[in-house]
Amino acid sequence: MSKPALAIDLGGTKIKIGLVKGHAVIATTSIDAHSANGLRERLPYIKDAITTLLDQQNISLHDVEGLGMSVPGIVDSKQKRILSIDKKFGDAPEIDFEQWCKEAFGLKLSMENDARSALIGEWKFGKAKNYENAVLMTLGTGVGSSAVIEGKLLRGKHFTAGILGGHFIINYKGSQCNCGNKGCVETEASTWSIAAKARNSKGFSESKLSGEATIDFESIFRYAENDLLAKQLRDESLNVWSACAINLIHAYDPEIVLLTGGIMASSDKIIPYIQQQTDAHAWTPWGKVKIEAASFLSTAALLGAGYLVTNDKY
Amino acid sequence: MSKPALAIDLGGTKIKIGLVKGHAVIATTSIDAHSANGLRERLPYIKDAITTLLDQQNISLHDVEGLGMSVPGIVDSKQKRILSIDKKFGDAPEIDFEQWCKEAFGLKLSMENDARSALIGEWKFGKAKNYENAVLMTLGTGVGSSAVIEGKLLRGKHFTAGILGGHFIINYKGSQCNCGNKGCVETEASTWSIAAKARNSKGFSESKLSGEATIDFESIFRYAENDLLAKQLRDESLNVWSACAINLIHAYDPEIVLLTGGIMASSDKIIPYIQQQTDAHAWTPWGKVKIEAASFLSTAALLGAGYLVTNDKY
Repeated sequence: MSKPALAIDLGGTKIKIGLVKGHAVIATTSIDAHSANGLRERLPYIKDAITTLLDQQNISLHDVEGLGMSVPGIVDSKQKRILSIDKKFGDAPEIDFEQWCKEAFGLKLSMENDARSALIGEWKFGKAKNYENAVLMTLGTGVGSSAVIEGKLLRGKHFTAGILGGHFIINYKGSQCNCGNKGCVETEASTWSIAAKARNSKGFSESKLSGEATIDFESIFRYAENDLLAKQLRDESLNVWSACAINLIHAYDPEIVLLTGGIMASSDKIIPYIQQQTDAHAWTPWGKVKIEAASFLSTAALLGAGYLVTNDKY
Repeated sequence: MSKPALAIDLGGTKIKIGLVKGHAVIATTSIDAHSANGLRERLPYIKDAITTLLDQQNISLHDVEGLGMSVPGIVDSKQKRILSIDKKFGDAPEIDFEQWCKEAFGLKLSMENDARSALIGEWKFGKAKNYENAVLMTLGTGVGSSAVIEGKLLRGKHFTAGILGGHFIINYKGSQCNCGNKGCVETEASTWSIAAKARNSKGFSESKLSGEATIDFESIFRYAENDLLAKQLRDESLNVWSACAINLIHAYDPEIVLLTGGIMASSDKIIPYIQQQTDAHAWTPWGKVKIEAASFLSTAALLGAGYLVTNDKY
């Protein structure tokens, strides 16, 4: 029988840690990310949390296969380095994680982008299981993507293939994105950009949104039925995400597109709309691409990172 | 020594026929496409043209390796069928080309999308020769694309991966494309769409373009320096193509993007602009993607189609 693997899902707010075996998350814990302070100062806390988690499960490091890390950035999964990470964890590209992992735990490390890790989790154990051609789209603080084409995880020479769907231009005269590009999916409709977009919109002072402490997709979807600006922002966002889904379909030729991320709390509004839009507008002479919510909205990246420890060719 | 191959480059205006061997087009001829009448009625003329070409070269069909077809549409390169072809050659999906090729010439057939064929030509013999990660973008009647990733031609399960870059949405509130989508690259800036876009623009009657029998990129680039509307259309088109190039870079992670197609008559204006835009806006932490004019502006698809006859795994 194979051993369980440790998995770390690095998020901007929380760092999730799991002990995973196949499709099962045996145990999980998390610590605050304090990402503005960098990642290096978090490493001792991650080590402590892992030690505690293993102690609670009565599992020694000898019984662990390795450690898998899921990272919200561009990752060199061969050299186990973070190449680019947007604002958060600014010191991460300088860190030698392989060495840290060896010194702290005596374990081998694998490392992958978070959207790719989540797709691996869904592809091996979730809704993408019976497909060799699948795309994942994450709607949350940012917008992420990943693709499996003809049974192979798409990485590309510089590790950016598949994961930059949130930075497809869908409005070439649009506003500045924090990636340096203009009119990206993310800058037009994601959690980090939507509050400023609302505040800069005509009719903001008359909108119920102006009375909210936090303007996010939860409040936008809540008010959309009887507030003009909330309705406009919801409808525009749905169209932005649909355009992103169509571009992902045109780029990667999947049979299924799985949606995940924080915004999926409103998935009953989002999935049917995007399905209708891709049915109507994507050029797929062979049939229709399935649009579905992912199976593991909070643990797919842990499962994928754990899977890659034992199964990655790198 | 390997035998030469016959290659057909199916275009909407002309059907080009070549006898190719490696990087060399030994001989070439062409016939009118009359694409509105369908492709079936053209097959006897193609056969005659091929027979004449071989006779002139004193080459018998026994000395030919096979026939490669380059097609402006979605092609099942395993079954050698055309799956979808936009308006032109409406009867093509019904035709059994493999049987025709066997009956007419006793030759084996290979078949591929035209942008993929052109990229194969450039990858094996032209400017993409030393790259394992390359994208081709064709600017012409329509806008096409293709990609080689980590040394493999991208095709996808339904044969649409890589080739639909002209149908990336770059203006999600934009105008209707003839593919059924909205705000595609093609509908915002290609030869088939630009004349109507000019005529529907404010200031058309005052523009020098209104005196032109044919409004195309040749006239738009010619007048752009001292005509307001021509300048606006040129600048918008350059930005549309730049957005397309950035999306292709974000989708496929290439080292080089080659541009080809009819509009490349103005390549001295187009290439530097797109290079500057991708340098400024594409998210490529590893370095800069090269933007270059393709090596074989008129024969890349013939070379690629010929190459695939002997070298395709399908």
